[in-house]
Amino acid sequence: MPHRVINFNAGPATLPLSVLETVQKELLDYKGEGMSIMEMSHRSATFDNLLMETEALVREIMGFSDKYHVLFLQGGATAQFAAVPLNLSLPGKTAEYINTGSWSEKAIKEIQKLEKPFRVIASSEDDNYSYIPSDFSVGSDASYLHITTNNTIFGTQWQEFPDTGGIPLAVDMSSDFYCKRFDPNKFALIYAGAQKNAGPAGVTIVIIRDDLLERTPKNIATIFNYKTFAEKHSMYNTPNCFGIYVVNLVMKWIKSQGGIDKVEQINRKKADLLYDALDSTDFCKPHARKDSRSLMNVTWRLNSEDLEKKFVADAKGKGLIGVKGHRSVGGIRASIYNAMTVKGVEELVKFMKEFERTNG
Amino acid sequence: MPHRVINFNAGPATLPLSVLETVQKELLDYKGEGMSIMEMSHRSATFDNLLMETEALVREIMGFSDKYHVLFLQGGATAQFAAVPLNLSLPGKTAEYINTGSWSEKAIKEIQKLEKPFRVIASSEDDNYSYIPSDFSVGSDASYLHITTNNTIFGTQWQEFPDTGGIPLAVDMSSDFYCKRFDPNKFALIYAGAQKNAGPAGVTIVIIRDDLLERTPKNIATIFNYKTFAEKHSMYNTPNCFGIYVVNLVMKWIKSQGGIDKVEQINRKKADLLYDALDSTDFCKPHARKDSRSLMNVTWRLNSEDLEKKFVADAKGKGLIGVKGHRSVGGIRASIYNAMTVKGVEELVKFMKEFERTNG
Repeated sequence: MPHRVINFNAGPATLPLSVLETVQKELLDYKGEGMSIMEMSHRSATFDNLLMETEALVREIMGFSDKYHVLFLQGGATAQFAAVPLNLSLPGKTAEYINTGSWSEKAIKEIQKLEKPFRVIASSEDDNYSYIPSDFSVGSDASYLHITTNNTIFGTQWQEFPDTGGIPLAVDMSSDFYCKRFDPNKFALIYAGAQKNAGPAGVTIVIIRDDLLERTPKNIATIFNYKTFAEKHSMYNTPNCFGIYVVNLVMKWIKSQGGIDKVEQINRKKADLLYDALDSTDFCKPHARKDSRSLMNVTWRLNSEDLEKKFVADAKGKGLIGVKGHRSVGGIRASIYNAMTVKGVEELVKFMKEFERTNG
Repeated sequence: MPHRVINFNAGPATLPLSVLETVQKELLDYKGEGMSIMEMSHRSATFDNLLMETEALVREIMGFSDKYHVLFLQGGATAQFAAVPLNLSLPGKTAEYINTGSWSEKAIKEIQKLEKPFRVIASSEDDNYSYIPSDFSVGSDASYLHITTNNTIFGTQWQEFPDTGGIPLAVDMSSDFYCKRFDPNKFALIYAGAQKNAGPAGVTIVIIRDDLLERTPKNIATIFNYKTFAEKHSMYNTPNCFGIYVVNLVMKWIKSQGGIDKVEQINRKKADLLYDALDSTDFCKPHARKDSRSLMNVTWRLNSEDLEKKFVADAKGKGLIGVKGHRSVGGIRASIYNAMTVKGVEELVKFMKEFERTNG
C-alpha cells in the first residue's frame, strides 16, 4: 500500500485513488498499444476514440443535449477570462459581471484590459465576499452575464443559478464542476479548469451552446476561437492528451459512484458533517453566510492566528494536509471536492473536536 | 516487462523508458508526500522546488545565461503563434518571417489575422518545402525575425541559424528542441511544444531574453503576457504541473545520457544510419535536400503509393509504429527524436532492407 495522506488542498486537489491506480497501471502500455498515452499520436484512432468517449461522458453525466459542444482546451480559467469576452461580446452591447471575489475580479480585470464594454451589476465586496448577491437584475440588452459559481477562497457557492431572462449565462465552474445536479439548459457557456473536480491541471473543459459559436469574430487569436475548436473537436492543435485521459477516468469514476445524484448526496453528507461541527461550537467562526455556503470549500476562523497556525500544524501531524486558509480570509479552509471521501471528512471532524478539547 | 513497440510517431512521440518508469513509480506518492504530483498544490514548496529545478536544468543543459527566462506555458505552438506578434511587434516596424512549410505558414497566418505588420522574406514553397532557404537578408528595421527550426512534415531542419545583424531571432523549436548543441546567444526567443523532445503534450517551453520583456504591451490577454509569466516564474495561474514534472525528468535524462553533446552524437548516429540506408538504393527517394536534412524527421517516398501502404503495414507487423508520411508529402516518415534508441533505428533499417529485398 502506498503512503497516502488525507488531502484537503484547494487545487490541484485529491483525485480518486482508483483513477490514479489505473493511470499507474496503464502508464507504459495503454490498452495493449505498446506505448504510453503520452506517446500516442493525437490523430490515432485510439486517441480519437478516447476523446469522443470523454466528450460523450461529460455530456451524458449531466444530460447536456447535442446542442452543446464539449471542448478540452488549455490555459485554465485565466485563458477563458479572455476567451469569453473575445468570443461572446456583441457590438453595441455590454457584458454583465457579478463579483463574488477573487476569481470574478480576475475575469472582470481581463475584460477591462481587452477593452470590451462591461458593467458589474452586483458584488459582495461590502462583506468580504461572505455571500452570493441576490439583489440584482440582468439588463435585457446585455451580451451575456458572467458569474463564478463557487469561490474557493471565501467558501461561497451559488445555490440556485440566476434567471437571466434569455441573456446567455457564462460561468466559471472551475471549483465546483459536476459536484451536484444542475439544469444544463440554464447555461450558454461553462468553463472549468480541471484541477479541482475533473482531473489534473493543464486541461480546461468548456461546454458551449451551438448558437454562441456564431458570435466568434474572425480576427481573434486561434487558440481562443471556440468555433474552430468546436468544429475540430478540440483537435485544431495537439491537446493535453494525458490530461484528457485522466478526465475520462474521472468521468467514469463519477458513473461508477452511481452518477451525479449519488455524488451530490455524498458531497452534501461531507459538507453537513463539517458545517454541523462548525455550528456546534463558538470555537470556530465560519466565514461564509449560511445561505451561501459552498459544498466544496469550507472556510472558518479560530480565535487567534497563533491558534490557527497550531491547528494547521497539528492537522498535518495527523496526515490531514492543506487546511491553511487563503491569505484573503486567513484561518482554515478544507476543500472537500468529489474525490474526498466521507471517511476523510470524518477524520477531520474528529481532529477538530480533539483540537478544541486540548486548545479551547 | 511491459509490451513496448518501437515508436516513430511524429508527436506526441516516444519518451525515454526510464522517465516513464519513474512517473509510474511515483504516481501515487510523489517523494513521500503521500499524494500524486497531480494532487499537489502548485504553491507548495515541493512543487516550487521542482519548477525552479526544471528552469535551472533547461538553462544549464544548453548554457543559457541569467539574461534568459525559462517559462512553462500552455497551448502549444498555436498559442505562441499569437503570443509572439502580440508581445514582440513594435510600432512602425515590420516582423519578418521565413516560410519553410506548414508550421511556418500557421505562424504567418496568425500574425496576419492579428493585423500586425509583417513580411515573408524567404520561402521554399517553390520546391514543396524540400529545403531551407539561404538567399535572404534580414531588414535592419525589422521588429523580429521568425523561423521554424525544424519541419516535421517535410523533414527539413536549419543546419546553421541565420545571422540577423542584431534583429531579435524568435524561433519555433517544437520539433527539434535540445536535439543538438547551439549557441544560446543567437536567440531572443525560443518556444517549443514539449510533445516531441521534452515531455508530454500540454506544456510549452518558452526561453526569452530579458530585454524582449520590455516590449510587452499592457492590453494583451494575460495568458499571452510573457512579462507577467516571467515575473511570476510561470505561476501567474496554475501551470500544467504534471507536464512540467515530466519535462524535469526528461531534462535529467539528457544529463544522464552525458549531456547535450552526447545526445547530439547519438542523434547524428541514428540519422546517419537512416540517411545512409536511403542513399544506398534507388528504391527510396528522400524528400529533403541533402543540405537541409532533419536529424529528427526523415522523409522519403517509394515507387508507388501501394508499395508505401505495404511498407507501413509490414513495418507495423514488426512492431515499428508511426512511419506513415504526412499527407502533404506522402510516403514514409520516421521521427527519431532524442528518446528513440540507436537499436530502434537499426531495427528500422534492417526492416527497410528486407522490405526492398522482397518488394524491390
